[in-house]
Amino acid sequence: MGLVVQKYGGTSVANLEKIKNVARKVIRAKEEGNDVVVVLSAMAGETDRLIGLAFQAAEDPDRREYDALISTGEQVTVSLLAIVLNGMGYRARSFLGYQVKVHTDQAYTKARILKVDTRVIREELKKGSIVVVAGFQGVDMENNITTLGRGGSDTSAVALAAALRADVCEIYTDVDGVYTTDPNVYDKARRLKRISYDEMLEMARAGAKVLQPRSVEMAKKYEVPVYVKSSFTDEGGTLVTKEDKEMEREVVSGVTYDRDQAKITVVHVPDRPGIAARLFTPLAEHNIPVDMIIQNASMDNYTDLSFTVSRKDVKEAYRLAQEAAKDVGATSVEVDENVAKISIIGVGMISHAGVAAKMFTTLAKEGINIMMISTSEIKISCVVQAKYTELAVMVLHDAFELDKRED
Amino acid sequence: MGLVVQKYGGTSVANLEKIKNVARKVIRAKEEGNDVVVVLSAMAGETDRLIGLAFQAAEDPDRREYDALISTGEQVTVSLLAIVLNGMGYRARSFLGYQVKVHTDQAYTKARILKVDTRVIREELKKGSIVVVAGFQGVDMENNITTLGRGGSDTSAVALAAALRADVCEIYTDVDGVYTTDPNVYDKARRLKRISYDEMLEMARAGAKVLQPRSVEMAKKYEVPVYVKSSFTDEGGTLVTKEDKEMEREVVSGVTYDRDQAKITVVHVPDRPGIAARLFTPLAEHNIPVDMIIQNASMDNYTDLSFTVSRKDVKEAYRLAQEAAKDVGATSVEVDENVAKISIIGVGMISHAGVAAKMFTTLAKEGINIMMISTSEIKISCVVQAKYTELAVMVLHDAFELDKRED
Repeated sequence: MGLVVQKYGGTSVANLEKIKNVARKVIRAKEEGNDVVVVLSAMAGETDRLIGLAFQAAEDPDRREYDALISTGEQVTVSLLAIVLNGMGYRARSFLGYQVKVHTDQAYTKARILKVDTRVIREELKKGSIVVVAGFQGVDMENNITTLGRGGSDTSAVALAAALRADVCEIYTDVDGVYTTDPNVYDKARRLKRISYDEMLEMARAGAKVLQPRSVEMAKKYEVPVYVKSSFTDEGGTLVTKEDKEMEREVVSGVTYDRDQAKITVVHVPDRPGIAARLFTPLAEHNIPVDMIIQNASMDNYTDLSFTVSRKDVKEAYRLAQEAAKDVGATSVEVDENVAKISIIGVGMISHAGVAAKMFTTLAKEGINIMMISTSEIKISCVVQAKYTELAVMVLHDAFELDKRED
Repeated sequence: MGLVVQKYGGTSVANLEKIKNVARKVIRAKEEGNDVVVVLSAMAGETDRLIGLAFQAAEDPDRREYDALISTGEQVTVSLLAIVLNGMGYRARSFLGYQVKVHTDQAYTKARILKVDTRVIREELKKGSIVVVAGFQGVDMENNITTLGRGGSDTSAVALAAALRADVCEIYTDVDGVYTTDPNVYDKARRLKRISYDEMLEMARAGAKVLQPRSVEMAKKYEVPVYVKSSFTDEGGTLVTKEDKEMEREVVSGVTYDRDQAKITVVHVPDRPGIAARLFTPLAEHNIPVDMIIQNASMDNYTDLSFTVSRKDVKEAYRLAQEAAKDVGATSVEVDENVAKISIIGVGMISHAGVAAKMFTTLAKEGINIMMISTSEIKISCVVQAKYTELAVMVLHDAFELDKRED
């Protein structure tokens, strides 16, 4: 009845048997009367294999060529799915980024989509075709192949859904939806039937792996309804959508954790203007994203400055922090890699007092020391010792009764 | 000094070590002052792997999608070589068929090149780049990926050399040139230093595997000098070039064999007009190329008609011949798959009498029965029992003293 964009990830197209399974799901949507546009990732493991080849070929692979290389993974899956669909008697055509076209900037390996043409796809849909589009890739204005960075196929799918004004963008993955927390960590985790864009965005940023943050940003911007589903079962699913004013707001929708954290502390920093700039400018210049920053209360005009970075950046961040520390007369730089970030997320926080207090109390009762805190309108994050990750997730899940509500 | 097009086949780029070896050869040509355009095949075995996937995906894979799938092999090698070259400090850029553009017709899986644009390549060469082009692939007027059929990378290289007016097109392969016959069959085989386009073309058509016939046709048409060389040694090489009127013409330049032959005989056919058309039209309609045809002398208005086809086509050709035989009142159809075609090739045949006689006598002396004969200006082919293949090659090589001449 409508126009559906379906995206299948790498585990859903890991081999021909699974691609045939995808074909059956696509055909069902088609048979229900929909126009269907399918977006695929590469076979699970293939992108990593190609990246491995690139780094064997050169220490620092040329980025234009790197993108040309790793974009072949999606070209293989889309043409195979189109072959399977044609073989099953359904007209299907695959399209690459440059054929669609999916216009991007020239930031190879992490390009951003500027515009998606829809003419070719609409023409094919009119002919009754199932259209299969390679995710993760685009083309710059000079006809060079670009890729969108890890998880970019989610963004491809949402961008196509937005450009085509699709009725829904279905993201098929190896889990059957978005949960209140990671079911591998806490078996009381409950699947959410709906979640708002903002909550999903905070959850994705705070460590939930189910959707790439950029794809959620884009879905929010263009108000694309995103349905997260399992490619292996018809049960379940979570709808990511606009916040519904009519619905009662959940105080807390989910608990997330992120172990990819390292805490760096610059000790005994003179507390005067310009010190933070001297410390954080070099990090920005080296493209090292800093997540949380806290500064202790000043004592005798000296303070301690702590911040967190991704673990892969910790070596370089440490080096840069040491240089800055020397410059500004700090005593030393300390690194703690045994930390994790625990977050609670919920749009209801805005109107409910005491959520933060409840989080801190809950953790304190278990003897979990909070090392850093950061808050946004709909999220509270605490850095704790890594060994408490699971415990923190479970007690917060219980405290906010996330297993109990029916949404 | 000039503009060189170098083509490397699948065995020359079979893995990263070999691609690095190719890079060193490319750099040497560049350092000698040349502009260098490199054309690559897919890694040895990769195209077959992709074809295998296509036929697992569907019994009769959609051809547009098949081409999109199998063209990924070359995309991997060209981007890897460009990464290696950039890593070694040489600016290099890879281009796919649609980026060049290599315009072809829409005959998927066996497309023909219509035109090759040179603007993008010339611009890159002007910037000092080494240009690396994916062989075997092109793009049709609707921006669909096409492929040129087996061995198509040779044709890509010659077409690029012609369009760019290159000084030479070097074809690097796993043998060090064109031989008077297959050295694996006869160790007296001698490498030719030069060979004319016409002789090369007949040799390629008659079973020599070193160059694809279409690439030789194109080289002849545009007078592109083609140098066949080994990618593993600097020794040797054969120049395929215009016939040099000054040079003494070789009577016979080479002996070839082709085991991919099957002989079909329609027995006791009424000898009246239109019978041959009734027999061969269905074969043409089913895209089955017929190589040699002979018709025995008519006896009592009946005759036997024999023809040869490639072994892969024998089943279907047999079926079609049986239908036709029934229609025209022939007695039966016989198939002989134990045949081979032996050919001698040489531009000197035109002006030397007695070459054919010498061939027939030589075979007769060994008791090798000739089942069919066909001749062109510079080639004589005989169909013999397959078991005599090696013997026929050796005695003809000796009879025409191919091991002795120095060219």
